[in-house]
Amino acid sequence: MDKIQSLTGMLDLYDDGNGDNLSVKIFETEKILREIFSNYQLKEIRTPALEETTLFKRSVGDLSDIVNKEIYSFNDKNEKSIALRPEGTAGIIRAIIEKKLDQSTHKLCYLGPMWRYERPQKGRYRQFHQAGVEILGYPEGAPEFEMISIVCKIIEEFRLKNCLIKINHLGNKNNKESFCKALVDYLEPHKDKLDDKDLERLSRNPLRILDSKNQNTQSILENAPSIKDFIEPSSIKILMDIKSQFSDICDIEIDYSLVRGLDYYSGFVFEAVSSDLGAQDSFLGGGRYDYLCSKLGGKDLPSIGMAIGIERFASLLKDITSTNKMASFLVVTSNLEPKAYKIAHQLRSMNKNIRLDLQLSKASLKAKLRRANKSDADYAIIVGDEELKTNTVIFKYLKDESNDQEILSVDELFNIYKSI
Amino acid sequence: MDKIQSLTGMLDLYDDGNGDNLSVKIFETEKILREIFSNYQLKEIRTPALEETTLFKRSVGDLSDIVNKEIYSFNDKNEKSIALRPEGTAGIIRAIIEKKLDQSTHKLCYLGPMWRYERPQKGRYRQFHQAGVEILGYPEGAPEFEMISIVCKIIEEFRLKNCLIKINHLGNKNNKESFCKALVDYLEPHKDKLDDKDLERLSRNPLRILDSKNQNTQSILENAPSIKDFIEPSSIKILMDIKSQFSDICDIEIDYSLVRGLDYYSGFVFEAVSSDLGAQDSFLGGGRYDYLCSKLGGKDLPSIGMAIGIERFASLLKDITSTNKMASFLVVTSNLEPKAYKIAHQLRSMNKNIRLDLQLSKASLKAKLRRANKSDADYAIIVGDEELKTNTVIFKYLKDESNDQEILSVDELFNIYKSI
Repeated sequence: MDKIQSLTGMLDLYDDGNGDNLSVKIFETEKILREIFSNYQLKEIRTPALEETTLFKRSVGDLSDIVNKEIYSFNDKNEKSIALRPEGTAGIIRAIIEKKLDQSTHKLCYLGPMWRYERPQKGRYRQFHQAGVEILGYPEGAPEFEMISIVCKIIEEFRLKNCLIKINHLGNKNNKESFCKALVDYLEPHKDKLDDKDLERLSRNPLRILDSKNQNTQSILENAPSIKDFIEPSSIKILMDIKSQFSDICDIEIDYSLVRGLDYYSGFVFEAVSSDLGAQDSFLGGGRYDYLCSKLGGKDLPSIGMAIGIERFASLLKDITSTNKMASFLVVTSNLEPKAYKIAHQLRSMNKNIRLDLQLSKASLKAKLRRANKSDADYAIIVGDEELKTNTVIFKYLKDESNDQEILSVDELFNIYKSI
Repeated sequence: MDKIQSLTGMLDLYDDGNGDNLSVKIFETEKILREIFSNYQLKEIRTPALEETTLFKRSVGDLSDIVNKEIYSFNDKNEKSIALRPEGTAGIIRAIIEKKLDQSTHKLCYLGPMWRYERPQKGRYRQFHQAGVEILGYPEGAPEFEMISIVCKIIEEFRLKNCLIKINHLGNKNNKESFCKALVDYLEPHKDKLDDKDLERLSRNPLRILDSKNQNTQSILENAPSIKDFIEPSSIKILMDIKSQFSDICDIEIDYSLVRGLDYYSGFVFEAVSSDLGAQDSFLGGGRYDYLCSKLGGKDLPSIGMAIGIERFASLLKDITSTNKMASFLVVTSNLEPKAYKIAHQLRSMNKNIRLDLQLSKASLKAKLRRANKSDADYAIIVGDEELKTNTVIFKYLKDESNDQEILSVDELFNIYKSI
C-alpha cells in the first residue's frame, strides 16, 4: 500500500533520539516562555487557527509581504475566503473587539502554531510557531519598559549570548508622515538607481525602504533624512531611559533605521537579534500599534506587542538537559504480573518530580538495564519473580561510581522515593 | 467600519474576568496533563494541523461519522484535498512511518487543537482541543496496565468525583469476525424493527450497533450474543486483572457492550465517563489498534492509545485557584520613573514562583490598591516619589488580618521577596 506523506513544508516535531533535537528545544522553549509569562502575570489568550481572510488584509496591511505572498487561504464550503492565521495579533484584537473589551486594559500572552503558504526554504516551514505578548489599553510609558523587561528576561532565562536589542521610535502619526514625505523627497532624484522592489515600496510604504537588503539602496540611504530629526524629544528620552535602565542586563542599541515589517506599527519599536543566526538575525520583535483596534472596527485602544519566532529562537539554544531525575522501572517476571504495575502507579504519586520510565517490553534484565543506562536514568527499580514473592524490589543507583544496589521492601522503596 | 467576526463555531479562549472561566480550566487542564505525561516519561510529538484528506479516510475509516460528516476539508491552491486534523492518532502513525520508526518502540503524548465541520451545538465547537497518549511497538500486556494507570492518575490528580472507567476486550481478528457474524445472524430476523442508522451499521460495521441510542434497538440487543463468549480466556483475564489492581483508585467496570466509535480498534478498549456530564458522558477513551500502521502503508506495529476531549474534561473541574502567590507592583510617581520598572524587573529574577503584576496605568494609589485587592494579590509593593528619593519601597501585606505595611530599603525588599 502506498504511504501517505506529510504535506510540503509541514514538519513533525518529535525527539526521535537521532541527534536532531530541534523538536526538544522547541518544546523546552515553550515551557520556559510559559513560566516567564506567568511570572509577569500575563494571561493566556487563544484565538482560533482560522479567521476570515479579510481580517489579515485589513490588519497586517494589503501591501505587506505576509498578505501578498504568504497567506495560507482557501475557500470554504460556502465559498468564503478563510485564512490560517499568519500571526497572532490580528485575531487577538478581533477577539477583544468582539467581546466588547476594547475599553478595558489587558496584559496577554499567546503561544501556538501559525501558517504561511510561501515556498518552503531551509529553516522556514509552512506551519511554524510563535509566542507573543500584547499589552492593551495603556498609552506610551510604563508598557514600553515592561515590554523590554520581558525581552531582557527571555534573554537572561535562556542564557543567550551574542544578542542585541535594537530600539527605535517612529513618532506619532504626524511625525511619521513628515518623515515619510522627507524620505520620498530625498529618494525621488535617485529613483533610477532603485530596484523594482524598492520602487514599489517608495510608492506604497516608503518607510520599508529602510529595510532594503539592496546594498546600492543602503548606500543611497546613508545621507537620507533620519527619523531622529522628526520625532519629539519625549520619544528620544524614552529610548535613552530604556537603554540606560536595561543595558547592564542586555546590549541595547538605539537604531534610527529600525522600522519593522508590519504596516501597523507607530511609536516605539524594537527587535532582538543574534549574531549566531546569520543574515536573518532577528528572533523577536514588536512595537506599539495604537491604531490597529480602530482600524478593525473597535474603539481607540493604545497597544504594544511583541512576537517570538519559536523555531528560530530554539535554534539558538544549546543542548537541553532535564532537571528532573529519572527512574527506570524494570519488570522481569516470567508471567505478566499486574502487581508490579501497581507499584509503578503508586510511585508516580509519591514524587511527581521524578520521571518514571516503566519499560514495557518483554526483554531480559540485561537488555532492560542497558536501556535504562542509555536513557540516562538515575535509578533502576527491578521487580522479578523472587521480589514479587517476598514483596521487595531491587533499587540500583545507576549514576553513582559505586553502582550500588540494595534490596528494599516496597514500603522502604516508597520512603526512599519520596525523599529523592 | 464594520466589525470582523470570528468564524462560526470557533471559540476564543480567554479569561475575561466575567465569571465564565472555562478558558482558565482548559489552560489548567493542559498544564496538569503535561505534568502527568512528563511523570510517565511520555515524549511529546506534534504533527501538523493539516494532512492529506486521504489519511483520515484510510485510518478513521470511510464509514465513521468523523469522515462522513465532520471532517473539515478544503481544496488547496493545487486542487489537492487537505483536511484539518479531526483527531491526533492518524497523523502520529503517518509521522512514525515517514521517519521509518515503525519498527521501534515509542511512548508518546500530544496536546493540541483539532477541527471538525459539523454544525456547532452547545458545548461542541469547530475548533476544539484534545490530549492523548500513544504507546507503540509493544504487544498486549504491560501497555494495557500502563494506559489504565494513566487514566487513574488523571482522575486522581484532578480529584474528579462520580467517574467510572469502562473496559472491554474486542478479541483478536478472528474473535471479532466470529462475533460480528453471530451478531448479524441474531439481528437478521429483527431487521424490520431497526431504524435506518442501525440498518446501515448492520450492513457496514455491525459492532457499532451496540452503541445505538435507539431504545428499541437496545431492547432487541438484550438477548443478543455477547463478545464475552467469543474472546480468549487470556483476554478476560486481562480485564479481571486490571479491574482488581486499580479498583481501589477508581471505579472500574467490565462492560462487554463497549465498542468505541472508531473502526480501527481491536483487543482492549476503554472509556472514562462521568455522571456529571449528562447524556454524552464520556470524556476520555481509547484502545488497542494493532492494524492501523500496516493499513497506512507501514510495518506491523502493535499500538494502544487514548484521547481526552479537553473542553468536556475541563467542564468537569471545580474552580481553579493558582497555587503561586501574587504581588502587585504600584508605581505612583508624578513622572515616568524608569528606575521603578527596573526594580520590578529585578524582583522577577529573585523569586520566579511569585507572579508580579506591574500595574501599568497612571491611576491613583487608591485606585491601584483597589485593583491589587480585586486581583487577589497577596502583597502590594508601592513606589512613590518619596520612596524613589530614599531608595525605599512600601511593602504591604494584603491578606493579613492586620493589613500591615512596612518601609523597606530596596535591598531589604529583595531579601524578603526571595524568602516568601
